[in-house]
Amino acid sequence: MSGNDLSYMALALDLARATRGQTSPNPVVGAVVVRDGAVVGMGAHVKAGEPHAEVHALRMAGEHAKDAVLYVTLEPCSHHGRTPPCVNAIIEAGIKRVVVAVADPNPLVAGTGIARLRQAGVEVTVGVGEAQAKKANEVFFHFITTKTPFVTVKTAASLDGKIATHTGHSRWITGEEARQRVHQLRREHDAILVGVQTVLADDPELTARQQGIARGKQPLRVILDNQLRTPSEARVIRDGKAPTLVFTADDAPIGRQKELESHGAEIVRLEGRVTVEQVLAVLGERGITSLFVEGGAAVNGSFLQARAIQKVVHFLSYKLIGGQGAPAPYGGLGAAHMGEAISLADVDVEPIGGSDLCITGYPVWPDGASNSETRRNAGCK
Amino acid sequence: MSGNDLSYMALALDLARATRGQTSPNPVVGAVVVRDGAVVGMGAHVKAGEPHAEVHALRMAGEHAKDAVLYVTLEPCSHHGRTPPCVNAIIEAGIKRVVVAVADPNPLVAGTGIARLRQAGVEVTVGVGEAQAKKANEVFFHFITTKTPFVTVKTAASLDGKIATHTGHSRWITGEEARQRVHQLRREHDAILVGVQTVLADDPELTARQQGIARGKQPLRVILDNQLRTPSEARVIRDGKAPTLVFTADDAPIGRQKELESHGAEIVRLEGRVTVEQVLAVLGERGITSLFVEGGAAVNGSFLQARAIQKVVHFLSYKLIGGQGAPAPYGGLGAAHMGEAISLADVDVEPIGGSDLCITGYPVWPDGASNSETRRNAGCK
Repeated sequence: MSGNDLSYMALALDLARATRGQTSPNPVVGAVVVRDGAVVGMGAHVKAGEPHAEVHALRMAGEHAKDAVLYVTLEPCSHHGRTPPCVNAIIEAGIKRVVVAVADPNPLVAGTGIARLRQAGVEVTVGVGEAQAKKANEVFFHFITTKTPFVTVKTAASLDGKIATHTGHSRWITGEEARQRVHQLRREHDAILVGVQTVLADDPELTARQQGIARGKQPLRVILDNQLRTPSEARVIRDGKAPTLVFTADDAPIGRQKELESHGAEIVRLEGRVTVEQVLAVLGERGITSLFVEGGAAVNGSFLQARAIQKVVHFLSYKLIGGQGAPAPYGGLGAAHMGEAISLADVDVEPIGGSDLCITGYPVWPDGASNSETRRNAGCK
Repeated sequence: MSGNDLSYMALALDLARATRGQTSPNPVVGAVVVRDGAVVGMGAHVKAGEPHAEVHALRMAGEHAKDAVLYVTLEPCSHHGRTPPCVNAIIEAGIKRVVVAVADPNPLVAGTGIARLRQAGVEVTVGVGEAQAKKANEVFFHFITTKTPFVTVKTAASLDGKIATHTGHSRWITGEEARQRVHQLRREHDAILVGVQTVLADDPELTARQQGIARGKQPLRVILDNQLRTPSEARVIRDGKAPTLVFTADDAPIGRQKELESHGAEIVRLEGRVTVEQVLAVLGERGITSLFVEGGAAVNGSFLQARAIQKVVHFLSYKLIGGQGAPAPYGGLGAAHMGEAISLADVDVEPIGGSDLCITGYPVWPDGASNSETRRNAGCK
């Protein structure tokens, strides 16, 4: 590994990160082709079903790919999926050396692409920028190994930890820039989840609305609603702006189910009452790789209790609301002893718009086990 | 005002800030003497009753003070106090120009020092570094104009805004470095205040204990205790490490008063029940210029309700505690509508020890009036 390797891989990682939120269920991947110290090819995987990053970079390089070095943020594929294997294209282009940030996390294919390249006489270096590459694909790495979505809980509270006043008023705790960031985060996720209490209290649209972006894929809207109290008039049921999935208990009223279904919502009855574990299993089966939880205290507390949180995004507003009765970000019982409190690792603190902080971190559960495949990676974002 | 003026005044401000917490009830003041582009004198006010900053700086300059420029962070005094007037020393030393950051906030003497200098033919420039100078003396400016202590409320909570678990356990929420910072802050204040609940729950010592500092002035310990439930065995009563003042209601048991007094505590009965306003008035009369409130939710909530907070210091730990029943930093009722929430101005965010943030800010009360004389000054610390 040389300083040049690190610097070209950093460029490949930038290309990969640029497509965050648009490649699901595929990972983000960036690729750079370098010959004689000149960058001759660059590419990224844009969307599932479209060419892989290596193919774009090799096409751009054209004849310059001969005897060049390819930097790629994830092990090139060696199997026929929706596109032909990248290793064939690499070998055919005459690449003499491939630098790979990290092997494919899928145990069924891990290492096979690297082995194929070496068999063909291509020199392969693995592990350059590995930590950053895993972090850039934290969702993909988690999903491929657990078959359940990577869960990010987003909270927004005052300095004194209140997500609303004691009367339930919460518009607005954070500033305009922080709220725009939330819309960007929504767009990067496959699904958004809230509880029925939030639907009843705020009637949210739960769509990604970013300034300057008129269209684009909308995440699935997921509502936890044991007794199907979601009103037929709710925006998430009526507005048709994104699909809506309502999880409910097995004894929920059938009439309400039919009514909500008649407006286009999908209802999934779970065994007994709605549990975080059942919800994640069903979403995973449906290929939802990332879940953005924007619950109130009860829903967030349930995910905390279930240890089903891979990442925390907390917007802290430079305000004091006060009041013991005002709701906190995480309800439920919580820790009894400080030894049971959950620490956050790899914390990143970013001031936003002069009135808020965005604090992100990865829970480390009290027994020492992290609930994220990628927690130990350095850096944040 | 020139770039040189700003740069020499910045040095004088550094000298002033170096003595923070040790000059009460006097302000911190720094002075620099410059002749022909050379710094020939530097001084700061070290302790009440000892020479002022200007005198130290002029002594160091000696004969170099002739025709030199004096930079001083506060208007030089023109009256005989515990030391002779500085303006006399300045004139006698032959200083040709004086650059003053800010006029004396005491309305009785403001401007008289500047006028005396000008009458003596000394050129005077006022206002260089004014905002920073006011901030460096935020306690002094507040006390001199209100005759009540500058109140700083210190809180320490998890990311989700909990100051303890639902069982009341709170050791430790923050890391070692943050706790050391608290001891430093205690030392910089004239008094520390808690409620009797904190005494009963934690039996705190409430002293400034900094690594490497064996002695030094200890702040007054102040307990709010309507019914004199403070145990005679409490550390704040028994350990003799600092004076302790207990505020109580006018109907508190006389037997308990005598018992606590017999151990050296002072008891002050207020009219009716203990109120924040009465406490601040009494402390102000006693020359307490700065009060460090380390209350639990109830005490902090009372200060918030009374709008009697000039500064907030919040330690945020990278932890999740969870639990709606776990206590929040500020109890009481709090805001009903977000329009009643208190915004913080001039917020400073400082990472401490890798596991905590120290967030400081100045409350802006909802009607737009700040409760701090110095809120609008730029910068933090």
